Amino acid sequence: MYQLGIVKRNIVRADPAAVGKLAAFGAATVHEAMGRVGLMQPYMRPIYTGAHLCGTAVTVLLHPGDNWMMHVAAEQLQPGDVVVAACTADNSDGFFGDLLATSFRARGALGLVIDGGCRDVKDLTAMGFPVWSKAISAKGTIKATLGSVNVRVVCAGAEVNPGDVVVADDDGVVVVPAAMAMKVADAAAAREANEAAKRAKLAAGVLGLDMYDMRGPLEKAGLKYID
Amino acid sequence: MYQLGIVKRNIVRADPAAVGKLAAFGAATVHEAMGRVGLMQPYMRPIYTGAHLCGTAVTVLLHPGDNWMMHVAAEQLQPGDVVVAACTADNSDGFFGDLLATSFRARGALGLVIDGGCRDVKDLTAMGFPVWSKAISAKGTIKATLGSVNVRVVCAGAEVNPGDVVVADDDGVVVVPAAMAMKVADAAAAREANEAAKRAKLAAGVLGLDMYDMRGPLEKAGLKYID
Amino acid sequence: MYQLGIVKRNIVRADPAAVGKLAAFGAATVHEAMGRVGLMQPYMRPIYTGAHLCGTAVTVLLHPGDNWMMHVAAEQLQPGDVVVAACTADNSDGFFGDLLATSFRARGALGLVIDGGCRDVKDLTAMGFPVWSKAISAKGTIKATLGSVNVRVVCAGAEVNPGDVVVADDDGVVVVPAAMAMKVADAAAAREANEAAKRAKLAAGVLGLDMYDMRGPLEKAGLKYID
Amino acid sequence: MYQLGIVKRNIVRADPAAVGKLAAFGAATVHEAMGRVGLMQPYMRPIYTGAHLCGTAVTVLLHPGDNWMMHVAAEQLQPGDVVVAACTADNSDGFFGDLLATSFRARGALGLVIDGGCRDVKDLTAMGFPVWSKAISAKGTIKATLGSVNVRVVCAGAEVNPGDVVVADDDGVVVVPAAMAMKVADAAAAREANEAAKRAKLAAGVLGLDMYDMRGPLEKAGLKYID
Amino acid sequence: MYQLGIVKRNIVRADPAAVGKLAAFGAATVHEAMGRVGLMQPYMRPIYTGAHLCGTAVTVLLHPGDNWMMHVAAEQLQPGDVVVAACTADNSDGFFGDLLATSFRARGALGLVIDGGCRDVKDLTAMGFPVWSKAISAKGTIKATLGSVNVRVVCAGAEVNPGDVVVADDDGVVVVPAAMAMKVADAAAAREANEAAKRAKLAAGVLGLDMYDMRGPLEKAGLKYID
Amino acid sequence: MYQLGIVKRNIVRADPAAVGKLAAFGAATVHEAMGRVGLMQPYMRPIYTGAHLCGTAVTVLLHPGDNWMMHVAAEQLQPGDVVVAACTADNSDGFFGDLLATSFRARGALGLVIDGGCRDVKDLTAMGFPVWSKAISAKGTIKATLGSVNVRVVCAGAEVNPGDVVVADDDGVVVVPAAMAMKVADAAAAREANEAAKRAKLAAGVLGLDMYDMRGPLEKAGLKYID
Repeated sequence: MYQLGIVKRNIVRADPAAVGKLAAFGAATVHEAMGRVGLMQPYMRPIYTGAHLCGTAVTVLLHPGDNWMMHVAAEQLQPGDVVVAACTADNSDGFFGDLLATSFRARGALGLVIDGGCRDVKDLTAMGFPVWSKAISAKGTIKATLGSVNVRVVCAGAEVNPGDVVVADDDGVVVVPAAMAMKVADAAAAREANEAAKRAKLAAGVLGLDMYDMRGPLEKAGLKYID
Repeated sequence: MYQLGIVKRNIVRADPAAVGKLAAFGAATVHEAMGRVGLMQPYMRPIYTGAHLCGTAVTVLLHPGDNWMMHVAAEQLQPGDVVVAACTADNSDGFFGDLLATSFRARGALGLVIDGGCRDVKDLTAMGFPVWSKAISAKGTIKATLGSVNVRVVCAGAEVNPGDVVVADDDGVVVVPAAMAMKVADAAAAREANEAAKRAKLAAGVLGLDMYDMRGPLEKAGLKYID
Repeated sequence: MYQLGIVKRNIVRADPAAVGKLAAFGAATVHEAMGRVGLMQPYMRPIYTGAHLCGTAVTVLLHPGDNWMMHVAAEQLQPGDVVVAACTADNSDGFFGDLLATSFRARGALGLVIDGGCRDVKDLTAMGFPVWSKAISAKGTIKATLGSVNVRVVCAGAEVNPGDVVVADDDGVVVVPAAMAMKVADAAAAREANEAAKRAKLAAGVLGLDMYDMRGPLEKAGLKYID
Repeated sequence: MYQLGIVKRNIVRADPAAVGKLAAFGAATVHEAMGRVGLMQPYMRPIYTGAHLCGTAVTVLLHPGDNWMMHVAAEQLQPGDVVVAACTADNSDGFFGDLLATSFRARGALGLVIDGGCRDVKDLTAMGFPVWSKAISAKGTIKATLGSVNVRVVCAGAEVNPGDVVVADDDGVVVVPAAMAMKVADAAAAREANEAAKRAKLAAGVLGLDMYDMRGPLEKAGLKYID
Repeated sequence: MYQLGIVKRNIVRADPAAVGKLAAFGAATVHEAMGRVGLMQPYMRPIYTGAHLCGTAVTVLLHPGDNWMMHVAAEQLQPGDVVVAACTADNSDGFFGDLLATSFRARGALGLVIDGGCRDVKDLTAMGFPVWSKAISAKGTIKATLGSVNVRVVCAGAEVNPGDVVVADDDGVVVVPAAMAMKVADAAAAREANEAAKRAKLAAGVLGLDMYDMRGPLEKAGLKYID
Repeated sequence: MYQLGIVKRNIVRADPAAVGKLAAFGAATVHEAMGRVGLMQPYMRPIYTGAHLCGTAVTVLLHPGDNWMMHVAAEQLQPGDVVVAACTADNSDGFFGDLLATSFRARGALGLVIDGGCRDVKDLTAMGFPVWSKAISAKGTIKATLGSVNVRVVCAGAEVNPGDVVVADDDGVVVVPAAMAMKVADAAAAREANEAAKRAKLAAGVLGLDMYDMRGPLEKAGLKYID
């Protein structure tokens, strides 16, 4: 459970077909399709606007001010992975910069989600390597203490297991358990299909009050119109 | 005063001529013209850079995690309105997304100011529908509890009455009481006229110390120059 | 030490050659070259993306809600200076806007670092006048109380002496004591030279584990690989 | 509305009988009796445990770092009043200490609610003069800028009109509009009477599930029990 | 995994012998014995000083502003349990007060740990019913939306499984996985035994530098003494 | 200036006579006597109510999550000293507990001021060993990285030099530069003498408006009384 000093090499990644399907949707849609769970705290923000990512989690457990495990994680990466880094304490140091991004990308990683700080954001933006973090900080880190790679972690309030699907965009970061990935993808697709028709109606001036049949329930709840 | 379950249909909107005049100014200028009151807390930030808005307030009082009243508000909107949404408790959920924006725009609304979270920011940015919020969050909301529409609310620390003028840009959100709108617009115009001349002088190297005759007061206050 | 009501006219600015050398590096590199000290808190953010600045500090000590000393500071500015403004209490008011920026620029200043709020960010962005601040706020300030200019200040957690070098970019703000400027510039240059080779190796797929010879130390620390 | 430089001398205080009745209840009960509105933000904390207060509001509008209006307010106090101090900007300076408390008490005031900082908390505690504030800070303030006394203010997110009833205890601060005071007092009494019986049942082991008849609605909502 | 609308009735509680052993230690000691993991965020504070608790977790997943599931949880409580309540979004409402505490206590529960707000703190303190929460707020909640009971939750950054041991005191809240409880209890005992001797030495003036043999490593790391 | 890996053995402590004089005053009085500078941020809070301390600073510069230097500092302590610990990054870990307190006390130290976390607060309270910290956290720290002892540090926004006088109580923490200690002590004494007379007048019902002759300046500033 809470394991320090462990690197798990063989993890079960979510079904690639499900990951591919989920990649078509944004974080808000996937979050709804999940039943409104699995969302990281809203303090997790992308380092540049328009970033979007969908991949399988390789998890890292860090200690404050120490990024040693990030290098250990690099070796475990496969194309399509996303590194999800949690920290054993609240810390905004810059655990990650352009050198690690270069290494992660060379391994096929799509991006990083880190409950800590990030630096070299200009270079990362130029590389198009997306990072969601809770802070941007030039503060460097040391390499002294063991954490773990590919253990279950809590990142920005969300549980992440190695192999889970991570969907992130301007609205935030959602984690889809590997076993639920296809089901959630289907629910997201159904939701999205549904939304296009709604959007057209609303654009034409139809009110949500009528489209969703809310007038009755509102009256029953006691809503009063006054002049 | 504190009214739940109420929708006020007939509100007195600020004089359109005053709104039109105020639309020429930014939030900082209007705030100064108001005598440095009426500003929302600085945690209210636009979802994209360069957003600017000036319109009349339709107010909404929400409960945490519940956006039912947003649909009720849509029906009360008229062209040139701005929705100002307050919440009875601190909450950063994503109360608002692109579907509601489509509906609000179809009614002629100019934008949204919400003391809560917003989502679908990529779509809203593409639509050019400006939102000032305290958070961005993919977290959706339910539709279960009555709030109110067009009652006086406190939004991000500022009192807003239905019909007040809301001026918002990159610097923040200012609320101008409807009855003061023309007077504030005139004061803003006077201030702006005044600033052009000052800017030219300062650009030419004249010091504020001299332009504002500060040397005497500073000396009197005891300022000492040392080498 | 803590001096109010003082303006120091003659300050010793860092060696221009060192400032010129430091201007080639970002905040993260300089921070590393300093031995990981001298960084302001990460809440200090640039008002626009891509801002970069390297200059000599003219310091200002402000009181909350009062920007009188900013005008006093303007007279002390020389080409290549950066204004560093601290405040005697936590305050996010908009102490600085486009008029002061016009004045500072006319004196040759490169930008502002302020542990407080800033306004007119649209105009400042259009001017290309970079500001690092802890808040953006339309709230104006008065001119009533004496602070100081060119005394040692604590700004966003970092000590700044007049004449120190300030390096700021998207990653944050670092302060280099004047006396250390050349030494730090040399260390930064050495570091940067070193990084190009590392970046190439990592891009080619070499792991940090091997490049930095980490496998031995990790094993010694007890890291276990499991399947 | 937003008035600076104004002192209103004659205000209509809430009915003393209603204030007396409300004094029997805590903030949570009154807040419920209000329909869950009127509560200040939870960052407002008492300076000592066990403080409880119920009185009529004399409002003060302050500027950051300036407590001049507190002295102006003192003259407007009558026995049974509570000073409610708002600030035009976020500020945690120590606007209030034991000298002002001595003056306020001499006028018959019961305590202070301030959206800012407070100091001399040891003395205030010894005096038994309760203060709810958002910060404790030794930082003193100046007396330079006009605010107002007895205008409507927004304090910690709640609207307060002069003469409103303020109920505060360890759970927070609630504001009851003067016109609703008796009605709210009656509702609070009804609620409290109701609670004693519930408490006895729950203490005897009856479940809320049964006492509130929740099993049906929970089943209808889809709750599933698994083993 | 992320399950809404579920109540698990049969959970495996940690070995009572291990719980009994762990009850002798504080949160800091247990946290160290765990290898420095399992700690909730430090924003979780007891509502009164000196509170201490050690019991088995019954978990609750709440929605913001809704405490319906707390009543469902009551039925699942057994003597020695501790309710651990997580929330699907950041919310500081007062989910819990003296009536629920009366019910929980009647079932044998020892206390509550909630990543949200709590109210009636005066009554709870008088009852000696300990609560660790992130806020105190008089704001009440509704009963409208299904969460879950006895599913795995993330509470204040820590993963909690039903049946895990929760140790809480003035220093914070630590979660010990049920399967590790005895091993952690033994490690805590060993650590504590060890500390008594150290304390005596330090009290006698022996330096940690000598007691822990730090002088060599410090010198090797490059520490320099100057005069 | 920013020195890592340094321990300065011989520091110049403030004049004991001045320290003795300052010990008679609280933080608010000393802060005023300093001219309203030298105060740490208000997030620094005592771990128990009623703590009061006045002593000479031995400074420590820590890295996040690492308390190695605290042991190095112990050896430099003399009776009457106060340890002032700063950290190179924002960190709330529990750097300090009852073992270190036992060691510090054995050396004659009066207490600790730390811009980080503290643990074992129950034991520290029982010992009567006062600590002002920004957090309470059970999270332990490692001993791996060199910081410094007795270099100038920035702690919670205030500059502290070794040997400076630290005055702390329920209102916060003030730092008096050693060279100014006697002058500040005299100013504090004058202020306090002055306050007793004021307190008596205010208690007798004299208004601050009259006692401080504020009516003229208020009228001149434009204050209007309305009915």
